Amino acid sequence: MIVLGIDPGLSLTGWGIIEAKSANNLSALNYGCITTPPKESLIDRLKFINLELQSVIDKYKPEVAAIEQLFFLKKSASVALVSQARGAIVLTLALNKIPVFEYNPRLVKIALTGYGSADKYQMQHMIKTFLKLKEIPKPDDAADALAIAVCHINTAKYK
Amino acid sequence: MIVLGIDPGLSLTGWGIIEAKSANNLSALNYGCITTPPKESLIDRLKFINLELQSVIDKYKPEVAAIEQLFFLKKSASVALVSQARGAIVLTLALNKIPVFEYNPRLVKIALTGYGSADKYQMQHMIKTFLKLKEIPKPDDAADALAIAVCHINTAKYK
Repeated sequence: MIVLGIDPGLSLTGWGIIEAKSANNLSALNYGCITTPPKESLIDRLKFINLELQSVIDKYKPEVAAIEQLFFLKKSASVALVSQARGAIVLTLALNKIPVFEYNPRLVKIALTGYGSADKYQMQHMIKTFLKLKEIPKPDDAADALAIAVCHINTAKYK
Repeated sequence: MIVLGIDPGLSLTGWGIIEAKSANNLSALNYGCITTPPKESLIDRLKFINLELQSVIDKYKPEVAAIEQLFFLKKSASVALVSQARGAIVLTLALNKIPVFEYNPRLVKIALTGYGSADKYQMQHMIKTFLKLKEIPKPDDAADALAIAVCHINTAKYK
């Protein structure tokens, strides 16, 4: 199974592609970040995110996508920006007929570390271990995207 | 010029198509609402909005779109829902290479009534007058979408 994990954002969208040959045999095929500059218009930024995500989809042909649920502690204005990016991302996945699963950040932490308040360092260490990587994936948004994909695989195996 | 006005939402997206033969000769070609039920998944709702909007675009071939800016008085959770719909809508317009202009609700009111705090009744009365309609367009979201399109035309003529 090939899983696309996404940590959505307007300025920075992290993505990670994981191949799961079995529940315990995971490997990261690739990961990265889609960045859009604030000086560009919203329409151009959403179009760029769509184009970049489409090229990831075309290359790796994920069968399923896992995306972080939004959490609402921030100001409405920043929620609105990240949410518009998330809407464009979910539509891109839908147009590619890729099923989308949503996970809240706390569940992602529990799935990786067994601990819902794990810090960034603990999470990144577990991602490195799960995926047998030589180093911690950078930037943080790409590591978060890989974590969401691992969460989907770990959660799916108990279903 | 054919203008598509949009009042974005996840449950209800109003749309209106206006043909402007000149700045003072406007007619509503059609208007309506795209509704999605809360029991459906986000992905299905965004896909449905995309499909319905695409069929409006295919039918009327608007050269430009005008969409309401988000305002942030509401709770983050509802901002997140309407924003995701808005992101999917803006991406749909971008994929159709339709330029998008954004107007805040106060400017829309000023453009139609000369008064930034106009109430719903005053707005709907002016839309009916501007577009020489026999009755006030229903539902409210479709009337709002027509107002945004009229705002774009009225604003554009002074540019």
